[in-house]
Order: sequence, then structure tokens, then C-alpha cells
Amino acid sequence: VYPAIVSDSDLWVEVMLDELPRSISWSGENLKLLDQRLLPEKEEYWLCERSDQVEDAIRQLVVRGAPAIGIAAAYGSLLGLNSSGSLDAMKCQFREQADQLEAARPTAVNLSWALARMCAVADGFDGSCPELLQRLTSEAQQIHEEDKQLCLQIGRHALPIVRQYPNVLTHCNAGSLAVSELGTALAPIYLAHESGVPLHVWVDETRPLFQGARLTAFELGRAGVPHTVITDSMAASVMAAGKVGMVIVGADRVAANGDVANKIGTLGLAVLAQHFDIPFYVACPGSTVDLSTSEGNQIQIEERAREEITGSDAGQLVPITSPVFNPAFDVTPAALITAIVTEQGVLKPPFNLSLEKAHG
Amino acid sequence: VYPAIVSDSDLWVEVMLDELPRSISWSGENLKLLDQRLLPEKEEYWLCERSDQVEDAIRQLVVRGAPAIGIAAAYGSLLGLNSSGSLDAMKCQFREQADQLEAARPTAVNLSWALARMCAVADGFDGSCPELLQRLTSEAQQIHEEDKQLCLQIGRHALPIVRQYPNVLTHCNAGSLAVSELGTALAPIYLAHESGVPLHVWVDETRPLFQGARLTAFELGRAGVPHTVITDSMAASVMAAGKVGMVIVGADRVAANGDVANKIGTLGLAVLAQHFDIPFYVACPGSTVDLSTSEGNQIQIEERAREEITGSDAGQLVPITSPVFNPAFDVTPAALITAIVTEQGVLKPPFNLSLEKAHG
Repeated sequence: VYPAIVSDSDLWVEVMLDELPRSISWSGENLKLLDQRLLPEKEEYWLCERSDQVEDAIRQLVVRGAPAIGIAAAYGSLLGLNSSGSLDAMKCQFREQADQLEAARPTAVNLSWALARMCAVADGFDGSCPELLQRLTSEAQQIHEEDKQLCLQIGRHALPIVRQYPNVLTHCNAGSLAVSELGTALAPIYLAHESGVPLHVWVDETRPLFQGARLTAFELGRAGVPHTVITDSMAASVMAAGKVGMVIVGADRVAANGDVANKIGTLGLAVLAQHFDIPFYVACPGSTVDLSTSEGNQIQIEERAREEITGSDAGQLVPITSPVFNPAFDVTPAALITAIVTEQGVLKPPFNLSLEKAHG
Repeated sequence: VYPAIVSDSDLWVEVMLDELPRSISWSGENLKLLDQRLLPEKEEYWLCERSDQVEDAIRQLVVRGAPAIGIAAAYGSLLGLNSSGSLDAMKCQFREQADQLEAARPTAVNLSWALARMCAVADGFDGSCPELLQRLTSEAQQIHEEDKQLCLQIGRHALPIVRQYPNVLTHCNAGSLAVSELGTALAPIYLAHESGVPLHVWVDETRPLFQGARLTAFELGRAGVPHTVITDSMAASVMAAGKVGMVIVGADRVAANGDVANKIGTLGLAVLAQHFDIPFYVACPGSTVDLSTSEGNQIQIEERAREEITGSDAGQLVPITSPVFNPAFDVTPAALITAIVTEQGVLKPPFNLSLEKAHG
């Protein structure tokens, strides 16, 4: 029924990519970040020429999504480096910038992973300052380029799953905006859509910051993928009605045993999927797999500001005197996950073995 | 540890009631409805002198909560009746008003239950027009007064459960604002709090209309009950952390087999509660039990406007071109419910038997 295989030439992937928004662009000298907080209403960009601007952008969620944060931080670590002084001073400035960037958000492992790659370049380097700057730039571009390829690989590996279950539910945004180009969880959806599969995607709005309603719906709309936005609390209802064939989400950190930290609400979806006998998939690049974390309960969960829930109009949505709890992520135990799709393939339980084999 | 029993004099209940907001007040001639859409920011009232104003108030959610809708509709059906013409004309006008009110919201059974009681008074009546008006007024006041007593009874029956599990999670608003005085799901919480139980209530914000964040948090704050607001998507996370001892919610309609229609998101909570081995209670007056509906799948689920999810600023939260699905309720199967608490007691499975016995 569907085209048998994704074309080798990938020409049609290129065509589709033109429709997708670019969250990160590197000019050669500065970094352009799409301000995702303003979507879908406005498409505005931050032009970053200094490292602290990128740090601000990560902290304030101008750029978000685990892989995108890593890429932005890699470029950010080399912005504004003084290459006209001593090599030691330059390395020192670089290390300071990298440390600042790493502290911007605690949960996503890609941030520290990307910065570790950048630091490895600086640490072992012996030569001129301009040459170091050039090496760092190459490494950041390499991280960026690899990420694009990883997304395509993830999409290809997960494509047969989406073909089998074309009624998909997703949470938050693990798409083009969160990563680069095809995204992770959305990559097989884009590939399936382009190859003619009659898809439908249920988009959880994803409180408190509405990344599903604002970003995923925006991306899918751009690419012409049929979709419907629901509140997070409606997922159970559409599942009970038999309207969901599979769930696919991204990840911020995958522990060695397969426990997955992802946007708050993911755990609830995984429990619902199990109850309604719906397969539950996680899609992420290998850089999200953190084998040094043995279990999910070791993952630090970022708590964010009260105002993300209450809104900025004090007392309008929540009484001023009412306490609020705002964890940004939750941990889904491996037992609730059908498979984890990375660039290496569709990894199945037992995850301690499959993750170690693919990413050890 | 706690006071052994709720005082017979109920003096302390009276004291607490002074702290709770009144959603419905009858002056003898007109109806005052607290505009719940403006809470917690503003406390403003609608003064209704005609039936269609009450209908508007129900439709626009100025007044909401299944029992409160029933009470408001009972008063609404007699507002503006012309008692200076013929009895037949007055009955005809009454019937027309009752029909209009009944159509205002489809899911809550209390609306049609209350109007059926009013209609029974009019149908069998033979006498003067002023006397009919007086009889109808008495019936509406009776419905209102009974509701207050029912809430107290529900609270007393469920009090031992809250004492056993003082870490409570609730969804939407089944409190003073939804009913009269103590509310249904919140009634045992208020009684437990007044009798010194060290409670904590997790309040689901309840998208799309935020009845939890806006109304339940407001009520609990007024009464001094410790509570924390979370997004609906965080319930799984606090349950997984062992912070929830029980879930209690209200109901809009209970079918003969124990299936419960309630605010969208209830089904998901019930599935989560089962997964995490947390007891799940429903509290409602007998008027919510609809033995003529055999199963939950026969209950008509109201779909509401797109703007409830997207907000009024077009394109800000959801792209203008993205479809939205907005069911106001879901159906929780009886198998996920630990017990249904009504004024008759704590009803346990098999619900077809216990509901029939208590409310048949």
C-alpha cells in the first residue's frame, strides 16, 4: 500500500525539510536561535554573539529540547572567545563558559554530553589560539551535523512502527524545534507522512508550557500532517475510545536500565498506554543515553518557577496564597516502555543489555 | 488522636461554613449566582430575575458543578412566571422555561432530576396561580436545603476514609462552589480538617477551565486546608513518589453499573490510582445516580468550544489552523472505583447491587 522504502536519494526529505522551522542556525560567526516561547504566534530570532546570551536562551527556554540544548551549548561555548591572548587564557575562558552553560539546565544529559565533546577538543589542544577556535567551531558543527543524521536514522528505524500504528499520540515537542531537522519522536511521523501513510497525531498540549499545543501542532501543521490538539487530561479518553494505536515521545535522559526522564506527563501516559494495551515508544539520539546513571531515581529532576503554572497575572489562575509544585520532568520506569529507538535501531527489553550493546 | 466523632450540635460546621463561598443564594424573589468564571481574582455575582438569565448562567459556566446546576435550574424554572393570568398559561410558561433550562447542559443528571421534581409539582397542581408559584418556590428551596444536608451526610460517611488517608488528591471542583455548603468530594476534607486531622490536598489544576486551580484552591485556602496545586500531568509523578494516599472526586452522572461520568481527566486519574495501588473514591448525592442509564457508554458526553483550550488570543496557544477536541467529561469504568459515597453511605462493589439498594 505504501511506498516500499524511503528513497535512497532522500530528495523528498530535503523538500519536506524546507517546510519545517529551524530552531538553530550557525552563520559561521554567530548563532541564531528561534525564540520558541513566542510560537506559534510569532517567529522571532535571538542573535547570540556571546556565550552568556546562549546561557540565557537555554535557561529561559528560548531554545529547548534535549538535543537542541546540546547543540546550542556547543556553539555557545565558543562564542566571544578571545583568540588574541595566550592559549592558557583562552582555554580558561572557554572552560568558564562551558561550566556556565552546563549549569543552565540540570536534567537533559545532552547538554553535558555536547560540552564534554567540546572540552575534549580544548583539553588536548596544543597550538595557536585561532586554530583552537577553528577546531572548536568544527566540533560544534560536527555535533550539529551528526544530530541531523541521527534524526534521519531514528526516523527510518521507527518508520515501520508508525506504518503499523498510524494513529499516534505524542507529548511535548520532540520534533524539528527540539532537535534539528526531522526531530526524534516526530521523525518517523514525517517520514511516514511523506511516504503516503494516512496518519493522525493526537497532540497533548503539555502543561504548563504548552510545548505540544504551541510547537508540535505548529510543526505538524507546517508539514501538513493531520493532527488534533487535546489537553493532557484527555489522553485517557481518546485511548479508551480506541483512537490511539501507539504513543511516541522523546527523552531528556535514559538511564542504563531503560528508565526514561522526559517532560512531566510522560509517566502518566506510559501508565495509561499499558492499561489500554497500547505500545509506548521513546525516540532519542544515543547522546541521551546515560549509562553512568544506573536507574531513573538517580536523575535530578528540575523544578521550575511557580509562574509557569500560575501565569503572570497574579491570582488569575491560582490564588496568590496557594502553593504550587512544578517539576519539569518525570521518570518513566523501563517496564512501561515497549522500545527505545535510537540511531542504532529499535532497542528492546531487557534495556540494560540492548542499551549497553548499542551505546556502551 | 483525632476527636472521636463529629459533634452532634454541628456548631463548628456552622463556623466553618462562614469561611466558604456561597455559589447560590435565593432572596425570596431572585437568585444570586457567584460568577465562578472570575474566581479567584474577583468575587462578582449575577442577579437573575428571569429564567433565561439562569439558562445563560448555566451555559456559560457562571454556575457549574452538577448539584449546583440542579439547584440553580430549580429556582430558574420559576423566575418571572406570570401568576396574574390563567393557570394553564402559567403551567405552559413554566414547562417552556424548564425545557430551556434542561437543554443548557447535557451530561449532569442533576439538572433533569431537579427539573423533574419541579415539573411534578406543577403537573399535579390544581389551584390558584399565586399558590402554584408558592409551591414551586417551596420545592426549589427544599431541593436546595436537602442538598446542604446531603453534603453533610456525604462528608460524615467519607470522614473515616480521609482520616485513614490524609494525603488526598482531587480533580476539578466538587466543593462548596459546585454544590451548596460543604460540597461533595471536599466535604470529608473540610470535616477532617476541622476535627484536627493533619491533611494535605493535591489539587489538579483541571484543564481546560482550571476549576481545580481557580476554585478548589480558592475554597481550600479560605478554609485553611493545606494544599498544593499541580498540573493534571503531574498527578502520576506525585503518586509515584508515594505522596498520595487516596483520590476523591465528584460525579456528573453515575450509571446503574457504577460507571461514573465526571470532569475530563477523571478516567486517567482512576487508571493511575489503580496502577499505583491508591484507593479511588467518588462522592456525590443520590440525585447524581441515574439507574435508568445502565452503563457509562450510554452517557452523552458534552463537547465544548475550541476556545476553552486555545484561549481567546487566537494563535497564541494553538495554531489557528490546528484542530482541537474538547470533551468536557469522561467515563470511568466501575472496575476502577473503590467506593461511591452518597448520603446513604459508602457504597461498594458490586455497584449494581449497592446503588440499587441505596437509590433504587
